[in-house]
Amino acid sequence: KVHKVCVLPGDGIGPEIMEVATKALTMAGAKEGEDFEYKYCLIGGAAIDATGKPLPDETLATAKESDAVLLAAIGGYKWDTLPSAQRPERGLLAIRAGLNAFANLRPAIVPRQLADSSPLKRELVEGVDILIVRELVGGIYFGQPRGFGVNEKGERIGFNTDVYSEPEVERIARVAFEAARKRSKRLCSVEKSNVLEVSQLWKEVVIRVGKDYPDVELSHMYIDNAAMQLLRNPKYFDVIVTGNIFGDILSDEASMLAGSLGLLPSASISGSGPGIYEPVHGSAPDIAGKDVANPLAMVLSAAMMCRYDLSIPKVADRLEAAVNAVLDAGLRTGDIYKEGPDTRLVKCSEMGSELMKHL
Amino acid sequence: KVHKVCVLPGDGIGPEIMEVATKALTMAGAKEGEDFEYKYCLIGGAAIDATGKPLPDETLATAKESDAVLLAAIGGYKWDTLPSAQRPERGLLAIRAGLNAFANLRPAIVPRQLADSSPLKRELVEGVDILIVRELVGGIYFGQPRGFGVNEKGERIGFNTDVYSEPEVERIARVAFEAARKRSKRLCSVEKSNVLEVSQLWKEVVIRVGKDYPDVELSHMYIDNAAMQLLRNPKYFDVIVTGNIFGDILSDEASMLAGSLGLLPSASISGSGPGIYEPVHGSAPDIAGKDVANPLAMVLSAAMMCRYDLSIPKVADRLEAAVNAVLDAGLRTGDIYKEGPDTRLVKCSEMGSELMKHL
Ligand SMILES: CC(C)[C@H](C(=O)O)[C@@H](O)C(=O)O
Ligand SMILES: CC(C)[C@H](C(=O)O)[C@@H](O)C(=O)O
Repeated sequence: KVHKVCVLPGDGIGPEIMEVATKALTMAGAKEGEDFEYKYCLIGGAAIDATGKPLPDETLATAKESDAVLLAAIGGYKWDTLPSAQRPERGLLAIRAGLNAFANLRPAIVPRQLADSSPLKRELVEGVDILIVRELVGGIYFGQPRGFGVNEKGERIGFNTDVYSEPEVERIARVAFEAARKRSKRLCSVEKSNVLEVSQLWKEVVIRVGKDYPDVELSHMYIDNAAMQLLRNPKYFDVIVTGNIFGDILSDEASMLAGSLGLLPSASISGSGPGIYEPVHGSAPDIAGKDVANPLAMVLSAAMMCRYDLSIPKVADRLEAAVNAVLDAGLRTGDIYKEGPDTRLVKCSEMGSELMKHL
Repeated sequence: KVHKVCVLPGDGIGPEIMEVATKALTMAGAKEGEDFEYKYCLIGGAAIDATGKPLPDETLATAKESDAVLLAAIGGYKWDTLPSAQRPERGLLAIRAGLNAFANLRPAIVPRQLADSSPLKRELVEGVDILIVRELVGGIYFGQPRGFGVNEKGERIGFNTDVYSEPEVERIARVAFEAARKRSKRLCSVEKSNVLEVSQLWKEVVIRVGKDYPDVELSHMYIDNAAMQLLRNPKYFDVIVTGNIFGDILSDEASMLAGSLGLLPSASISGSGPGIYEPVHGSAPDIAGKDVANPLAMVLSAAMMCRYDLSIPKVADRLEAAVNAVLDAGLRTGDIYKEGPDTRLVKCSEMGSELMKHL
C-alpha cells in the first residue's frame, strides 16, 4: 500500500528540514516495504505570497484526501505587519479546524544525550517523560462571539469567548485517558475551576469520563499551580490533559525542560481523518536558508505520523533509532551544540546525510 | 499620624504568619515614630464559617476606610466541596474588585541566600529581578457573559468572556511603564495577539501609552513564548505587564525561579484607595497550626505596604533589612531549609522572635 502524505513545508527553515524528513521517511519506509506518495502544498506565508490566502482551498482538499499531513513551520517577519486575519498563523488554525484535529499530543521528553542543556538542574529533569494532551480546535481560540466593540460606557473593547461543550471535553478526555492507560496510568487535568465556569464544566466531564478508566489515577490542578509544579517536580507528571490556551502555554513551558525545542515533535489527531504532524519549534526566519536548522524534530514528527496515523510502527522505530544514533555519535546542529570532546557541530544537510547512514 | 491597617489573617497558616508580621511592623514602625491601628476582619473560610459569606460586607467596609489592607491567605480542604460561588477564593476576588485593586505587582526576585534552591541552574537565576504587573480586576476573571448554557446542538456548555476595554489597558500599562521607568527601563507586554482580539486591543493600547514613555524600551511577547523565555533566559526580563489570567500563570511560574514561594510578597493597588498586600503563597492547610510556616513573605508584604500605600519607606527598609539579617544568619523555616554548616531550622515563632532582635 502507498501511504498518501500531504507535505506542507511552509516558511523559513520549513523547506530545509522537510527535505531531510521526507528523505529519511522514504528510506526508513523502503527498509520495511512501505511506500509514500508525497503531495506538496502551500500553507502560511508561502501560500499568502502565491494565492493571497494562508490556507488555500486546494491545500485543505489535498490534506483531507491524504492519510496524514506533515507540516514543517509557518510565519516570518515578512508577513508580521499584515492584519491578523490574513497572517500565516491563520493557516495553521484553519487546517487544524478544517481537519478537526482536536487532540494535540506533545511529548515533553528530555533526551538523555541533552539532559545537561536544560535550564533546570539535571537531577530534576533526567528521565522526565510527559505527554501533554491539548484540546486544539475549541476553547478561546475558536469561541464565539469574538471581536471588537463598545461597552455600555462607550469605551472600545476587545473580547473573546472561552467555551467548551460536554462532547468536546469528553472526546479529548478519552484520548488522554487512553494515552495514560498505555503509559504510567496517571492523568492530571489542568484547568482554573476556582474561577472559570468553562473550567468547572471541564473538570466535571473529565471526572465523569474517568469512571470508565478506573485503572488510571486522575488528579486535578489549577493552571497556575501546574505552571509551578512543572518546574518544581516535573517527574510528578505523566499525562496532562488541558484546554487550548492552557495547553499552548503549558506545552511551551514543558518543552523548555528539554533545554531546546530542536527534538520535540507533535501530533494533532482527529481520530477519524488524517492528523497533522509537526515539530514544536517555529519557522526560525533568522536562520532560514543557511543550512543550519535542526531537522530532528521534523524527523521525529514523521515518526509520530507513522505510529499514529499510518500504523507502521516499525518505520517509526527506525526513524527514532536513527535520531538516537546520530545524537549518540555526538552530532549536533547549532541549537543543541555544546563544545566538548564527544560532540561535533554539523549543518542541517549533514545531519540529514548522517541520518541516512544510520537508516 | 496613625496608619489604619485592615488585617485579614484568613485561613490555614494565615493567623500564625500574620502575628509575626504585625509584631514586626509595630516594632519597625516604633523605631521610626510611626504608629499603626490594626482592625482585624474576617475573610475566606473563616468568614464563611462565621457569617456564611467569604467576604462579609463589614470586612469590605472596614477595608475601604483603612489606609491599606494586609491579607495573609485563604482557603482550605474544609471548604473545597462548597459550590464554587461560595468558596473562600470568592472572597479574594470580591475584595480585589471591591477595592478596585487593579494592579497586582509581583516581584520575582531570587534572594542570593537561596539561589541554590531554585530548580533552575544557579547561573541562570542569580541576580534575577523581575516585576510582574498583572491586571487584577478585569479580563476573563470578571468578564460577562459567563456561566453555563446549551449550544445550538443542544449540548451543555460552560463559558467565560475574556474582555478588556481601552481605559482598563491604559491604566495598567501606565502603572507598568512608571515602574519600568524607576527600574531598568525595559517593559515586556505579554499577550496572545496572534490569536485573540482581546490581545490585539491590549497590544495596540500598550503601544499607544508607550509613546508617553520614550525612555522605556517596550517589547511584545506571546504568552506561550514568555512561558518559555522565563526559563531559557529569565534575566532578559525587567518589568512584565499582562492581563489577569496570563499574569496568574506567569507570576506563579516566575515565582519558582526563586525555588520557593516563602519569600515572595505582592501588592495589589488601586492608585486611589487602599491596596491589598499579601504573600504569593497560599494558606497551606496541611501545616496550619503547627508553628512551622514561613512568615517572611508576609513580613515582606507588610514592607511593600509601607512603601507603596503608607509612604513610610524607612519602615519598609527596616523590615527588609531584618529579613535579610535572619537569612544571613542562616535561619530557615522548613520550606527553605537545606542542611548545612551555616543553616539552622527554626519554627515560625522563632523566626519571628529572631526578626524582632534584628529590628
Ligand atoms: C502559532 C500559534 C497560533 C500556535 C498556537 O497558539 O496554537 C502555536 O503557538 C502552537 O502552539 O502551535
Ligand atoms: C486563588 C485564586 C483565585 C487566585 C487567582 O487566580 O487570582 C490566586 O491564584 C492568585 O494568583 O492570587
